[in-house]
Amino acid sequence: MRDLTKDSSLLAINSATVKSWTLEELVEGCVRAGITAIAPWRDIVQAAGVQKAGNMIRAAGLTVSCYCRAGLFPAADEAGRRAALDDNRRAVDEAAAIGARSVVLIAGGLPKDSKDLAGAHQQVHDGIAELLPYAREAGVLLAIEPLHPMYAADRACVNTLEQALDLCDAIDPERSGALGVAVDAYHVWWDPKLEAQIRRAGRERLLAFHVCDWLVPTRDLLNDRGMMGDGVIDLPQLRGWVEDAGFDGYSEVEIFSAENWWKRDGGEVLDTCIERHRTAV
Amino acid sequence: MRDLTKDSSLLAINSATVKSWTLEELVEGCVRAGITAIAPWRDIVQAAGVQKAGNMIRAAGLTVSCYCRAGLFPAADEAGRRAALDDNRRAVDEAAAIGARSVVLIAGGLPKDSKDLAGAHQQVHDGIAELLPYAREAGVLLAIEPLHPMYAADRACVNTLEQALDLCDAIDPERSGALGVAVDAYHVWWDPKLEAQIRRAGRERLLAFHVCDWLVPTRDLLNDRGMMGDGVIDLPQLRGWVEDAGFDGYSEVEIFSAENWWKRDGGEVLDTCIERHRTAV
Repeated sequence: MRDLTKDSSLLAINSATVKSWTLEELVEGCVRAGITAIAPWRDIVQAAGVQKAGNMIRAAGLTVSCYCRAGLFPAADEAGRRAALDDNRRAVDEAAAIGARSVVLIAGGLPKDSKDLAGAHQQVHDGIAELLPYAREAGVLLAIEPLHPMYAADRACVNTLEQALDLCDAIDPERSGALGVAVDAYHVWWDPKLEAQIRRAGRERLLAFHVCDWLVPTRDLLNDRGMMGDGVIDLPQLRGWVEDAGFDGYSEVEIFSAENWWKRDGGEVLDTCIERHRTAV
Repeated sequence: MRDLTKDSSLLAINSATVKSWTLEELVEGCVRAGITAIAPWRDIVQAAGVQKAGNMIRAAGLTVSCYCRAGLFPAADEAGRRAALDDNRRAVDEAAAIGARSVVLIAGGLPKDSKDLAGAHQQVHDGIAELLPYAREAGVLLAIEPLHPMYAADRACVNTLEQALDLCDAIDPERSGALGVAVDAYHVWWDPKLEAQIRRAGRERLLAFHVCDWLVPTRDLLNDRGMMGDGVIDLPQLRGWVEDAGFDGYSEVEIFSAENWWKRDGGEVLDTCIERHRTAV
């Protein structure tokens, strides 16, 4: 396992962690803190203007570990599915324009008034299969991120690493390297099959690694994630598993925290991420 | 699939659904509504006195579909594990005294300050293996209930039906009928492997079937469950799967609902359960 205790070169900051910041503030904040990689969400890239965003990131010498987020495939009708796919193509274009290695895909939940979970699964499969050639052409990898099962209804009906890898195998059986997964500690830490599925994923499928922590108690389903070290996830063990499987990329910090970290000064949050990345990841 | 549209003989009421009621009120309320089966939690049975509770239930001619709940095996030290096991033996004794067919076991979460999930899994295995002969002797079945992964840290580290069945196979490979699972729609509805795992469970392992619904949005991790029909779970499909696998027992309604059903009159809640059991399960 890589020794990170004196090193922040493998730390990336997801823009959701410093939610109040613009892209410009994120870029400046990371440069100031000596952080070399970011994972921006689409909202701040679009707000900055995509070309300008790319120029800003390149001028600062930052790596874009991944672009968050696209997907959300299931829809109640064909028009909805087309709209989702069009938007996903735009996300791929944006990712290419800012030099992101990959786009993170979350599946999307059940269409309004639907209880057809198997149908939603099928729509996710079909959507990714249709998007993949476009992304390959653009030189952008697609990383399916299984979300915690508590989001199955309204955000993502792909909820385990096994399910995400089954999708990868169905759509990209040749393991071309163009399609893989994002492993986010928060979403998958509870899974008894996690170690085995990370091994199954291997280097070709492990495209991103996200860290934060699961707090006890968790007071909100969405915005009560913890800073690394403040919860119950054995993050060094998890990092060991992804590294043993061949992953050599960034640990990307993504913390939704309405009542704690989002209320603090962004510089303080980044300093804490640096310290915790060295001691708790 | 059994036609329940005119029939409530397979409806059971879990006492958590009418949380403010004593056991006496639950028994009287069910008799008044024509409901023939209950699944009481330990608190109301202990409050009534175990022998008196058994007499009351028998005098009313009610079936006890299962007894809720025991388990909670992992502990920080040997004294804690002994205490949990002693309490589980008492739960088995109580179940026998009130004529319950089974005791529902939830695994328990991580011990305080522990991040050792694999260790907790092992403690759950060892605890159930030690409890099983005692339960068999008492003529009480043990039903492992996988809880939703959002409870992995603090309530139950057994979170999928597959994981629960793996435990059953490890502890009771001969499928003796003494150890099985409780399938609660709320906890498992999201799982892409659910249908296959229900089939794997089969008649010997399917000991209980709990229903309620997953609301969108869900506003609280614990106490915001929905009445059947008010959420996104395809309950008739799920009931079809458990019946196809050989289950012929009760649909037991268990709804934690601090802001809705717990605030209503218990008689109204029971009437709604009867109506929804006919139309939405």
